[in-house]
Amino acid sequence: MPGTPRRAAGRRLQLPLLCLIFQGATAILFAIFVRYNRETDAALWHGGNHSSANNEFYFRYPSFQDVHAMVFVGFGFLMVFLHRYGFSSVGFTFLLAAFALQWSTLVQGFLHSSHSSHIHVGVQSMVNADFCAGALLISLGAILGKTGPAQLLLMALLEVVLFGANEFVLLHLLGVRDAGGSMTIHAFGAYFGLVLSRVLYRPRLEKSKHRQSSTYHSDLFAMIGTIFLWIFWPSFNSAPTSLGDTQHRTALNTYYSLAASTLSTFALSALVGGGGRLNMVHIQNAALAGGVVVGTSGEMMLTPFGALAAGFLAGTVSTLGYKFFTPILESKFKVQDTCGVHNLHGMPGILGALLGVLVTALATHEAYGDGLQNIFPLIAEGQRSARSQAIYQLFGLFVTLAFAFVGGSLVGLLLRLPFLDSPPDSQCYEDQIYWEVPGEHSDEAQAPLSMEEPDTRA
Amino acid sequence: MPGTPRRAAGRRLQLPLLCLIFQGATAILFAIFVRYNRETDAALWHGGNHSSANNEFYFRYPSFQDVHAMVFVGFGFLMVFLHRYGFSSVGFTFLLAAFALQWSTLVQGFLHSSHSSHIHVGVQSMVNADFCAGALLISLGAILGKTGPAQLLLMALLEVVLFGANEFVLLHLLGVRDAGGSMTIHAFGAYFGLVLSRVLYRPRLEKSKHRQSSTYHSDLFAMIGTIFLWIFWPSFNSAPTSLGDTQHRTALNTYYSLAASTLSTFALSALVGGGGRLNMVHIQNAALAGGVVVGTSGEMMLTPFGALAAGFLAGTVSTLGYKFFTPILESKFKVQDTCGVHNLHGMPGILGALLGVLVTALATHEAYGDGLQNIFPLIAEGQRSARSQAIYQLFGLFVTLAFAFVGGSLVGLLLRLPFLDSPPDSQCYEDQIYWEVPGEHSDEAQAPLSMEEPDTRA
Amino acid sequence: MPGTPRRAAGRRLQLPLLCLIFQGATAILFAIFVRYNRETDAALWHGGNHSSANNEFYFRYPSFQDVHAMVFVGFGFLMVFLHRYGFSSVGFTFLLAAFALQWSTLVQGFLHSSHSSHIHVGVQSMVNADFCAGALLISLGAILGKTGPAQLLLMALLEVVLFGANEFVLLHLLGVRDAGGSMTIHAFGAYFGLVLSRVLYRPRLEKSKHRQSSTYHSDLFAMIGTIFLWIFWPSFNSAPTSLGDTQHRTALNTYYSLAASTLSTFALSALVGGGGRLNMVHIQNAALAGGVVVGTSGEMMLTPFGALAAGFLAGTVSTLGYKFFTPILESKFKVQDTCGVHNLHGMPGILGALLGVLVTALATHEAYGDGLQNIFPLIAEGQRSARSQAIYQLFGLFVTLAFAFVGGSLVGLLLRLPFLDSPPDSQCYEDQIYWEVPGEHSDEAQAPLSMEEPDTRA
Repeated sequence: MPGTPRRAAGRRLQLPLLCLIFQGATAILFAIFVRYNRETDAALWHGGNHSSANNEFYFRYPSFQDVHAMVFVGFGFLMVFLHRYGFSSVGFTFLLAAFALQWSTLVQGFLHSSHSSHIHVGVQSMVNADFCAGALLISLGAILGKTGPAQLLLMALLEVVLFGANEFVLLHLLGVRDAGGSMTIHAFGAYFGLVLSRVLYRPRLEKSKHRQSSTYHSDLFAMIGTIFLWIFWPSFNSAPTSLGDTQHRTALNTYYSLAASTLSTFALSALVGGGGRLNMVHIQNAALAGGVVVGTSGEMMLTPFGALAAGFLAGTVSTLGYKFFTPILESKFKVQDTCGVHNLHGMPGILGALLGVLVTALATHEAYGDGLQNIFPLIAEGQRSARSQAIYQLFGLFVTLAFAFVGGSLVGLLLRLPFLDSPPDSQCYEDQIYWEVPGEHSDEAQAPLSMEEPDTRA
Repeated sequence: MPGTPRRAAGRRLQLPLLCLIFQGATAILFAIFVRYNRETDAALWHGGNHSSANNEFYFRYPSFQDVHAMVFVGFGFLMVFLHRYGFSSVGFTFLLAAFALQWSTLVQGFLHSSHSSHIHVGVQSMVNADFCAGALLISLGAILGKTGPAQLLLMALLEVVLFGANEFVLLHLLGVRDAGGSMTIHAFGAYFGLVLSRVLYRPRLEKSKHRQSSTYHSDLFAMIGTIFLWIFWPSFNSAPTSLGDTQHRTALNTYYSLAASTLSTFALSALVGGGGRLNMVHIQNAALAGGVVVGTSGEMMLTPFGALAAGFLAGTVSTLGYKFFTPILESKFKVQDTCGVHNLHGMPGILGALLGVLVTALATHEAYGDGLQNIFPLIAEGQRSARSQAIYQLFGLFVTLAFAFVGGSLVGLLLRLPFLDSPPDSQCYEDQIYWEVPGEHSDEAQAPLSMEEPDTRA
Repeated sequence: MPGTPRRAAGRRLQLPLLCLIFQGATAILFAIFVRYNRETDAALWHGGNHSSANNEFYFRYPSFQDVHAMVFVGFGFLMVFLHRYGFSSVGFTFLLAAFALQWSTLVQGFLHSSHSSHIHVGVQSMVNADFCAGALLISLGAILGKTGPAQLLLMALLEVVLFGANEFVLLHLLGVRDAGGSMTIHAFGAYFGLVLSRVLYRPRLEKSKHRQSSTYHSDLFAMIGTIFLWIFWPSFNSAPTSLGDTQHRTALNTYYSLAASTLSTFALSALVGGGGRLNMVHIQNAALAGGVVVGTSGEMMLTPFGALAAGFLAGTVSTLGYKFFTPILESKFKVQDTCGVHNLHGMPGILGALLGVLVTALATHEAYGDGLQNIFPLIAEGQRSARSQAIYQLFGLFVTLAFAFVGGSLVGLLLRLPFLDSPPDSQCYEDQIYWEVPGEHSDEAQAPLSMEEPDTRA
């Protein structure tokens, strides 16, 4: 590819410049607006005469750490299945999430701190910021391999704002419940990314088709991501809920739902696979749909049976989606969904929202007792009936989809600006244009630490 | 292999059908019997006027998450050492454990809830269910690569019942102490699996001998499993104990025991290795024996020195077992122990039970103070002397071995039923008969996401 | 290599003998000196009439587990980037840390328990012991691949003592604050290792240069280490601080600092990389510098902005160090720094110490309120002004560097003793001289479990 590297190198300045500008601006905004909250400020905490044991840190930090592992280990490695895009998958996940968690702290802080001139931070804002990074990484899954890192940073800048706005409308203006984010995280992240992928449609992507696949070891690396997402999902859904029984119940429901989606995924994968064989793509992804589908209803009195049934359905729909719908999505709808986020986050996210509508409509004072205040405060205070709360929940889904479609379209148009660094059709899913890449085998490995330009696979 | 694939595909329906039947039946039983407990039910918890901070979630959930990581990451990746059986190792672990944790919730619930018409679930039942999954995965280690997934699901169905029955006899009928499961988990799981492997003995397994080995990278993947098991084992042994000093002491004892077994494993591995070289099989496995050996006594006043001595002995016995006993086990006893569970779980489990007998016999009111009630309630209440409790502990080991031998034999006979899908002798330890497998190197990778049948290594 | 294996095998007895002697001696010292503390002893805890919920276990054990994962998973896999030294990287990390945590329990116990004839252990001693293991593994990073395991065990024996002595002088004699160990762990570990590497300088190391590099998959394994270090670093810095707001604030500051160092690392890596391409070495390492740089000041009222600024600076300095300083370090100063610990731990550790001086000098009663007692007890009690405390902090850095330089020199001279087993210049960074190594690809894999000497790559 004569000439290309030099021109590309010029454009490649976009990444470092965006990093520096974004980080600089973020730091300045932090200096002006961000302050420790009552639980993290030495003077405020000790002025309050609290016992150390009551600091919120001890109730939420272990869950936060599990969420943090999901965002950086889970999403990062899940996307390593692409055999020549492993550095980018784990590396760009790392970069985007590290930026998003700062930027989201500001955006969410501005939206939620209307009463105060400052944004106050602690473990709750850490959880919320990581959640926003999660939505961003779901969108990344739809366009993975077809965009450069500068494009991705721009996407992050804008998607974080849209995520925050949608979340604010749902949770604060509409009073919708969505603790684990079936709507705000999964449906929003997935459809935002899918619309983006539609706008960035590449009719000649088959030039890179040989790279859009896995190898034996890249699939094992991806299973690291899958398993860490799977084991910690109970912490994800329960991290932001009310303390006590609510966190406990949410974790339990998610645990059962995931177990059931795993069995239905294995069953369906073998049923639709060639010669009854299992497909690693299904196992890596659809087995997780049980976590997505109880994102809204996990904190509610879903019952253990309800969790199993929901997970079973989600695993089934997700596996069938990978088998039958993903090809149509590309051929008919011109949406190239690299990681199949429509199957893992899109459809299960919508199902999760609808399940939330159903479980909300069934809520009674009897079933929740005095705990109703924690889950449905507006019902407990008599401002809404269970049925009207359910209608609000449904409306929240439509708002989310509207945000995702309009936002994804606009951001997609922006990312098509011709001066932005984007890989050519023949170089998609390829680490080498963004990374100094060593050889694949030890006899090719020729890149000692101190050498500037390693000899790479031509 | 002409003809085989088609016939195999027919039999391969066994897996999806068993998944669907087992999941369906489990869900129905959950609907009838399983309810939230006092700590996870909104109305019950709030009716009790409890402070959120006292919810058991905050005392056990972090330990549960560590146990969960051990079961799915630890066991799953530890078995990836087989270089052409990585998908099966991590995938079947995933499937079996996801089923076992549901089924075990029912079985343990039926056995322990005799006073109530319902099974009440929360973080304790989650820990207990994951423990049962652990025992199942130990048994899997003995027969790994020589059984099909439908056989494994049947094994799970029955072993979970036998595990529950043995545990019930020991803990509830005999009043035996075994918090970390030296007997109930490790000895039971190992000998059940070994007897199973004996019944399923394959005299012509050498046809697959070239696949029963590791490669450089498969050994590194296995070390992921080893290290996660090692770091979280203190949480495993302490997860179900009494709160307070007992959980704390159990974690501490396990931490020391593992450190000592690591040193003795390195020492012995180098001593018995060719040219003084270390053997990765020993490091991956025997270094963990320190966790197994304090499974019973870890909650007791073992003393830090006692933990070091026990770990040292366990690492030594386990390493020597891999070197000298595993070959005899196959040649003399016709037991083909794929992962060497006899060395990691069998012998250290028995040692752990005997150590429990010893430490129990030495228990005094002086050493435990008012804490005696938490560890040995029957001694504290004057119903047993330390010596008689020790005899019960010893009896518990024999009961466990009896359950394992009889149960393993019967289940083995069942798994030999000719219509069950089982790999031929020449196709053991081979992913390709159960999975759509991509190429090993990127130039062979030809399996884009949407293709149905990837071209695989012939 | 005729003759070598046999001679080497003789010398290879050094490893097992040292393991056995060290473990035996440690166990005896434990029997004499180590006892459960008030929180882990059954009689003492129950004699104290405490509520189980107040046991320190619940406040520190989740953080301890994160630290434990960093030491064994993080450090272990980060060093796997060397494509023929993966077994040694993760294996020797495992061995050294398992020894160090026992030995350090004794050393730190002797130094800190001057009032008692016994060393009392619990979760705090577990955190402290793991911290010492961390410092040891940093030093290992400087000499990785150029030393045999027996040399490493000797290094561990001595470095643990020096670490404990330096820590004692700083924290107890000088009253210096250094919760996350910018000085005691990072600067000490790095400069100790670098001086050691200088004393062990190998002028003909280029004979092994082709092995001092990564492959595609070894870099992905190393990213497992990086990501686990990155996500859990907030727990590392906060694990030993005062309970309540201090732990909470420290975790928050570290979280922000790491996010900023990630962005500056990506920016700088692309800026200095050939053709604007990112370098995996930078991402794997320099992105972590944000955790190191707030090791001292993380518990202080650094402010969220301060954390971002510090992280940004650390990522920048670290990346530039890898690019420009590491080559000079070898060519001018004859220091062969395998993992670049000077860039990740050395310079950021010194920066972290200086940042601690600055933030200490700015400490006021107003900013800390009654929390001042937890962070700067000597200022709160009026024994020191903020400025004099800052001068003590600065002095602590010099003491640390003096311990590192003198200690590293002496230990280096010892390790050069000719009878110690050390790899020849042409066999550095090579697993095969210490491990039985299977083939790299499945068609070479010929090492069934029970075989004694696998056929390896010649």
